[in-house]
This record gives sequence, C-alpha cells and structure tokens, in this order.
Amino acid sequence: MFEKNMRIAYLLDFYGDVLDDHSRSIMKAYYEDDLSLSEIADGESISRQGVRHIIKKCEEELEFLETKLALAKYFSETEEAIDTLLKVEALLLESNDPKYKGLSHELHEAIGKIKR
Amino acid sequence: MFEKNMRIAYLLDFYGDVLDDHSRSIMKAYYEDDLSLSEIADGESISRQGVRHIIKKCEEELEFLETKLALAKYFSETEEAIDTLLKVEALLLESNDPKYKGLSHELHEAIGKIKR
Repeated sequence: MFEKNMRIAYLLDFYGDVLDDHSRSIMKAYYEDDLSLSEIADGESISRQGVRHIIKKCEEELEFLETKLALAKYFSETEEAIDTLLKVEALLLESNDPKYKGLSHELHEAIGKIKR
Repeated sequence: MFEKNMRIAYLLDFYGDVLDDHSRSIMKAYYEDDLSLSEIADGESISRQGVRHIIKKCEEELEFLETKLALAKYFSETEEAIDTLLKVEALLLESNDPKYKGLSHELHEAIGKIKR
C-alpha cells in the first residue's frame, strides 16, 4: 500500500524549500494538487515507479528534517500561543484605560513578528 | 584566509542537529570551543586540510538551510517580539484589576510556548 500521508503534506509546507525543484514539484503535484502517481508520471515523462521512488525519498528527507529541527511541532504550539495573544490583545483593546489600550497595539506588533 | 565566521556559529545553533555526528563535533570544536584546525586535526587523527574541508562543507550546508528555511532570521525577530510580550506581561501583573492580572498569567504561558 502507498497511501497519501497527511502528515507529509504538513511537513512539505515547512521544509519543501529544501527539496530540489523537480522533487518539490512532484511532491506538490501529489500532496497539494492531489494528482495520482500515473498522472504525475505522464506529465513528467518518467515511469510511475520513478515518481513513487522520488516521493518516498522526499518523504524520508522531510521526516529527517522534522526529527532534527522539529519546526512543525514548534509552529503548531506557537499557533496555540498566538490564539492566546490575540485574545489578550482583544481584551486590552476594549479597555477604557488608555494605558491598556496602548499595550494592545504593542501586542499586535509582536504577534505580527511571531506569525510565519 | 580562513576566518571564523560568527554568523556560522549562530547558524550552527539552529541547524547543527541536521549535520552528521562527526561533522557536528568538528564544527562545535571549532566554533564553540574555539579550537584551532591543528588542534582538531590532532584530536580526530585526520589532516588539518581534512578538518578544513569538513568545516567548509558544513558551512555551505548551514548557509543552504538558512537560505531555504530562514529559521535564524525568524527567531531573531521572535526574540524581539518576546521582549515586548515580557514587558506587557510585567505591566499586566502590576495591575490592581484582577482581570488584567489574570491576563498576565495567560500571557506568561503563551510566552513559554513561543520560546525555543
């Protein structure tokens, strides 16, 4: 069996730029545009087996990078943190005290830097 | 000339885990423990030229990863954002209004998630 792994689609978003152009375009066709191995093989003029081999190799590379760098894990935790920051920002913005209102603007700017 | 590049020391902190063990240990000896090429060569029983070659290759790999992933750039901006968040946290903590005091605790937890 060779099932599309949605975790890989997620990792592709983080580490896709590290892959060479040809491999990345095959991975995107497979994981983002949801083409079949045969459809990609036809488009690239290589065998279905060749496409499968490239995808497997890239999947290993993406998993290796996540094992070492844990970016996907980090950014999923950061997204939770950003939800909290947005909530705090909204509450400060509602304040009648200009001091707290002002803090909401500083918070807003900080959130912009943290967002990918 | 082969000068120690402090930018590389910084990138090593982000991407060092992607290097194989032997290369990483040589890079750390050079950039973190500040050993000379000759000292590392003696310790590893390889030539000075061999050490230099490994360091050059690793430097290229680290620069490649930063070009593609821009983690060092991202985290340096995030650190600025965290300074702001810590300031906002401290001001909220000082508040006599329990609502704002409570927000400082939520903010504290969010900062914990964002910090590497």
